[in-house]
Amino acid sequence: MLDAKASAALHTLAADFDAGRTAALARAVSVVENQRTGSDLLLAAMHSRVGRARRIGLTGPPGAGKSTLTTRLVATYRQAGFTVGVVAVDPTSPFTGGALLGDRVRMEAVALDPGVFIRSMATRGSLGGLASATREVCDVLDAFGVDRILVETVGVGQSELDIARSVDTSVVVLVPESGDSIQTLKAGLMEIADCFVVNKADRPGADRLRNDIELMLGLRSGLSLKDQPAHHGVSLSQLANPAKAARAAARTDDVARWIPPVLRSCATTGEGIDEMITALDRHFGYLEQSGDLQRRRRTRLRERVIDVVEHRVRRRLWTDAATNAWLDERIPELERGGTTPYAVANALLARSGSLLSTE
Amino acid sequence: MLDAKASAALHTLAADFDAGRTAALARAVSVVENQRTGSDLLLAAMHSRVGRARRIGLTGPPGAGKSTLTTRLVATYRQAGFTVGVVAVDPTSPFTGGALLGDRVRMEAVALDPGVFIRSMATRGSLGGLASATREVCDVLDAFGVDRILVETVGVGQSELDIARSVDTSVVVLVPESGDSIQTLKAGLMEIADCFVVNKADRPGADRLRNDIELMLGLRSGLSLKDQPAHHGVSLSQLANPAKAARAAARTDDVARWIPPVLRSCATTGEGIDEMITALDRHFGYLEQSGDLQRRRRTRLRERVIDVVEHRVRRRLWTDAATNAWLDERIPELERGGTTPYAVANALLARSGSLLSTE
Repeated sequence: MLDAKASAALHTLAADFDAGRTAALARAVSVVENQRTGSDLLLAAMHSRVGRARRIGLTGPPGAGKSTLTTRLVATYRQAGFTVGVVAVDPTSPFTGGALLGDRVRMEAVALDPGVFIRSMATRGSLGGLASATREVCDVLDAFGVDRILVETVGVGQSELDIARSVDTSVVVLVPESGDSIQTLKAGLMEIADCFVVNKADRPGADRLRNDIELMLGLRSGLSLKDQPAHHGVSLSQLANPAKAARAAARTDDVARWIPPVLRSCATTGEGIDEMITALDRHFGYLEQSGDLQRRRRTRLRERVIDVVEHRVRRRLWTDAATNAWLDERIPELERGGTTPYAVANALLARSGSLLSTE
Repeated sequence: MLDAKASAALHTLAADFDAGRTAALARAVSVVENQRTGSDLLLAAMHSRVGRARRIGLTGPPGAGKSTLTTRLVATYRQAGFTVGVVAVDPTSPFTGGALLGDRVRMEAVALDPGVFIRSMATRGSLGGLASATREVCDVLDAFGVDRILVETVGVGQSELDIARSVDTSVVVLVPESGDSIQTLKAGLMEIADCFVVNKADRPGADRLRNDIELMLGLRSGLSLKDQPAHHGVSLSQLANPAKAARAAARTDDVARWIPPVLRSCATTGEGIDEMITALDRHFGYLEQSGDLQRRRRTRLRERVIDVVEHRVRRRLWTDAATNAWLDERIPELERGGTTPYAVANALLARSGSLLSTE
């Protein structure tokens, strides 16, 4: 698939990457993010070194102060001597360009530090998938030897939730005035939270929001979480993914279960950041001791394989000229109602077996 | 795949549907939306009757007044004697539960009319896909004989854009005070708009917003649209879809090109609704005369086949016990770094060829 020149360029890139050159990291991330030729080879070559970084997700509504919080966390981790990667996932919203631009400018405070690597993920075409691409970019940062990876997502859209689910520790950031009373938070977001942060905690309503979250978590009602009805039914994606379902089940049955702390912060003044770092460390310790870390990372590996399989299926089918020509020939009959999309799909798969199963 | 009882139930449902019973329509939509057993058979049976309804999409930011506008359009279409289907696509945002509830209540004004069918689409698991499910529900309404289908989406997230792209006429609704100056609108949304509506046009800034849109459309600059640089590069999804790419190319080269009108409305008073209906009719006439209607509908058929193929691939692979067990066995080696997700994916596809190609 690669010509000699491309192969040599990839070799040089891999060697520079292994030597720890930051420019090579930036190029490797670009190759992977844009799925340029050799992306798979590069990721495969670095696979054995993936798994050392701690991945922390920050999810919350627009305006919750996630970027300011991220900037504070980066600064604190840097003071402690850790290298940090930040992956900011732009929502695909056509309506939020302005706000995000502001975030990026704010983050420049830490962006000049060579121990910090910041990357914004753009919208992806349908062949790739944002969640899949984000996981791959995290893998590159991880293999490069970055100690902490902060993944910042706006909690809208299924793909952002998928991203938040694939980190080691998920932080859900809320603000008092966002108008998002706890009742309006859908189950998905509550389910993934390992830690809550009520940001802008100096504003009115902060205590009430904290109370609401804790009440929901069952802390105030005197019930242990085990006695609460399970809110999370088995989703289609769990059906398709026994490991995820097993993880959900294992969590419910755990005896010494992790109870998400509800922290206060004021990202603009830096208040509450140390407590947050402590909570993140504590959660990581819990993950290690409970076996959840291995389970989460196994799930992540499984999902990586599924991503790659689905991506290959799409590429092999829809970039194949013969398949496209064959499909085009079926359209007039479909138009006349002489056949159905289901019959055509079955016929397409029947003729594409060898296309799908061979490289 | 169906037992005798399920098969008989499906037969009854199909017969009631054919007889035009509204209860059967509601049940058919549920079967299709939740992909219950027999969903494919039902859709295949009605496929030859799909293609008579006009599909109109309304996309815009939260709070733009899309639901009120939809309600007005429904009322006007009903007065003209048309039956109407409304498909409201809930964004998967965990943060917007409250606002949507309000929308649904407002829409009750028309919901009691037996000539109106309203359906809210919920979040979908990863096996299905929101855009795919929405297209299928529209097909059911279309086959039932509904004259106009209004598809209401919040313009955030890739799947909502995909939905907006799959209708006959796309209306983009904006409001002066939404803070979304035209510069922040991403290319995707401008590209799909066949008609702009500046809603809440009695508020300050409405004229400026209209001017901005028209300026962007090149009307004020004295340049024809053909002279403008093409903003829409070929996306990955176009690469994967030659028909879409061809359509984009055909549009640019058209001599008598459709120039999206920029209308004013005030949904709460009903001002501008008649003009909107006129513009929609005019656009449909253009679609018929230019051949765009056939092109769009062919693209839609093609995308339906692609949806079905990808859904089948996922179902056949990830609900297959042997494949899952095989994948689980690979995880420890993946963990040790002894193999890579790419090698495992290739091996998985190599062993699954017959699984994928046979029903």
